[in-house]
Amino acid sequence: MTDELKIQFLGTGAAVPSPRRGLPSLAIIHDGGIILCDIGEGTQMNILSAGIPPSKIHTIFISHLHGDHIFGLPGFLTSQQMMDRSNPLTIIGPAGIRRFYESVREISDFKITYPLYFKELTENEAGPFLSGPFQVTAKVLHHRSTCYGYRFSEAAKPGRFNVEKAEQLGIPAGPLRSELQQGKTIHVNGKNISPGEVLGPPFPGRSIVFCTDTLPCENTLKLAKNASLLIHDSTFSKALTERALKTFHSTSVQAAEMAARAAVEKLFLWHVSSRHDENDEQEMLNEARGIFPETFLPGDFDTIEIQRPEQQA
Amino acid sequence: MTDELKIQFLGTGAAVPSPRRGLPSLAIIHDGGIILCDIGEGTQMNILSAGIPPSKIHTIFISHLHGDHIFGLPGFLTSQQMMDRSNPLTIIGPAGIRRFYESVREISDFKITYPLYFKELTENEAGPFLSGPFQVTAKVLHHRSTCYGYRFSEAAKPGRFNVEKAEQLGIPAGPLRSELQQGKTIHVNGKNISPGEVLGPPFPGRSIVFCTDTLPCENTLKLAKNASLLIHDSTFSKALTERALKTFHSTSVQAAEMAARAAVEKLFLWHVSSRHDENDEQEMLNEARGIFPETFLPGDFDTIEIQRPEQQA
Repeated sequence: MTDELKIQFLGTGAAVPSPRRGLPSLAIIHDGGIILCDIGEGTQMNILSAGIPPSKIHTIFISHLHGDHIFGLPGFLTSQQMMDRSNPLTIIGPAGIRRFYESVREISDFKITYPLYFKELTENEAGPFLSGPFQVTAKVLHHRSTCYGYRFSEAAKPGRFNVEKAEQLGIPAGPLRSELQQGKTIHVNGKNISPGEVLGPPFPGRSIVFCTDTLPCENTLKLAKNASLLIHDSTFSKALTERALKTFHSTSVQAAEMAARAAVEKLFLWHVSSRHDENDEQEMLNEARGIFPETFLPGDFDTIEIQRPEQQA
Repeated sequence: MTDELKIQFLGTGAAVPSPRRGLPSLAIIHDGGIILCDIGEGTQMNILSAGIPPSKIHTIFISHLHGDHIFGLPGFLTSQQMMDRSNPLTIIGPAGIRRFYESVREISDFKITYPLYFKELTENEAGPFLSGPFQVTAKVLHHRSTCYGYRFSEAAKPGRFNVEKAEQLGIPAGPLRSELQQGKTIHVNGKNISPGEVLGPPFPGRSIVFCTDTLPCENTLKLAKNASLLIHDSTFSKALTERALKTFHSTSVQAAEMAARAAVEKLFLWHVSSRHDENDEQEMLNEARGIFPETFLPGDFDTIEIQRPEQQA
């Protein structure tokens, strides 16, 4: 078991693919499994190019039902069938995602024999639920159609075990020490000993927040508060603020404002319109960094390792 | 107006994409327009990579409704909308292709405002009809689901105008000569003169036959008779003949047998399973050439110019 956690951008474009940016998809690669966020057309090819083992993808979170975020789903599902997948797969997203699958399945006449589960969210039923090592919360963002943002929060890890302190308290090596490490209070020599007496401060969990296709909104702030990473809609540059408003998207500046207000550690600009060339993109990044210096503009296939934060004092 | 006619392979794989072969699609590039045959996932990206102007695609012919042949359709249609297409687009394929479009459109909530037409084929209504410079005939092949093969037949071009002969016959330069070139009989100096008296033998039209996802069958022979080019299912090598039979596909050897029996000029092996590596493919090609020497195994993005045949004697 490792403590590794990383994300890999599989497609960072918006709406229409460009030679530089594919359609939206993002992999969260954790110990033992992989989560996808959105699955635009071509995602299965990008998974192949990235060298990600598709059978390890256990859950696909869908932000909303616009084509650039879901048209890669049927092909991924059928290819997994043809590659003899047996691992279960869960699809989580707005109401309609199951019907999308079922309509396409019926017309194009394919069978899925691996366990495939759908969970359709409603405003009243949007988590928290568990997915891999994460507790996941979803909230409705501000887009033309129902669009969910997701926060993936890893649990804290117990702090370092202080062997010297344990010896002083007369706790014998063995199962009693394990119980303390698992957070249980034990009884030794007529005294209760709580985990806090022998464990250092816990290692905080990491958190990834995925908010695509939205105007700046309060629910993004709620989801993103103090997150390790915020991946935020940044379809347009500041010059196109009007267009962003009209199409229910954000500019890089607005994304940076959300990151600053939510006090996240790092911001990744995402869902960049193909109308922007490399110069525009550099400007988008500079504009955002003026507000939130820890802003990045990843390209397709970029991988980001997320370090566990330092122990709290 | 040029006499150029070429095909470009946009995806030559089968079922599951591989790093070397994308999902099925083929462009027929004629003077002034482009036809697509099938549109697997990723075709819009491959069109971009190939540098083909998507707005010039006027018709998409669909062989059948299996996902690897149609999952690129919704993304292509929506991207064309976002790129402000105004040219009409026609989709021709088996019954169900319109419902595929409509279901996906309704769920993912997109609008198409350019003229979009669907023509669903039936066994009794499968052409001939006109598409660009071609007369197109479709026939049902032998697959698990209803799958159409298509023949694209270009009209013959009038033969060379023999000016000397025209002078001898006293035909004045001008509209009368044009009428002869258009195939009309004219009246000069009290005599009827037919086009054959002053025109050389006609330049025969070229013909492209597209037969994917099928066992060898009689309808392929009917479509392919004397064609310039046959693009034929070649999912498996000879060693997997049993598997080809079970899955209603062909081996390269079977494709070559069809090419030989139909007396085509050239055979292009197509829809190659990702289970075959480069060595297997070389073997598939060698096996086919043993039967039909003018066999080729194109890769993605390969382009084939089709020369107009020599004038018939």
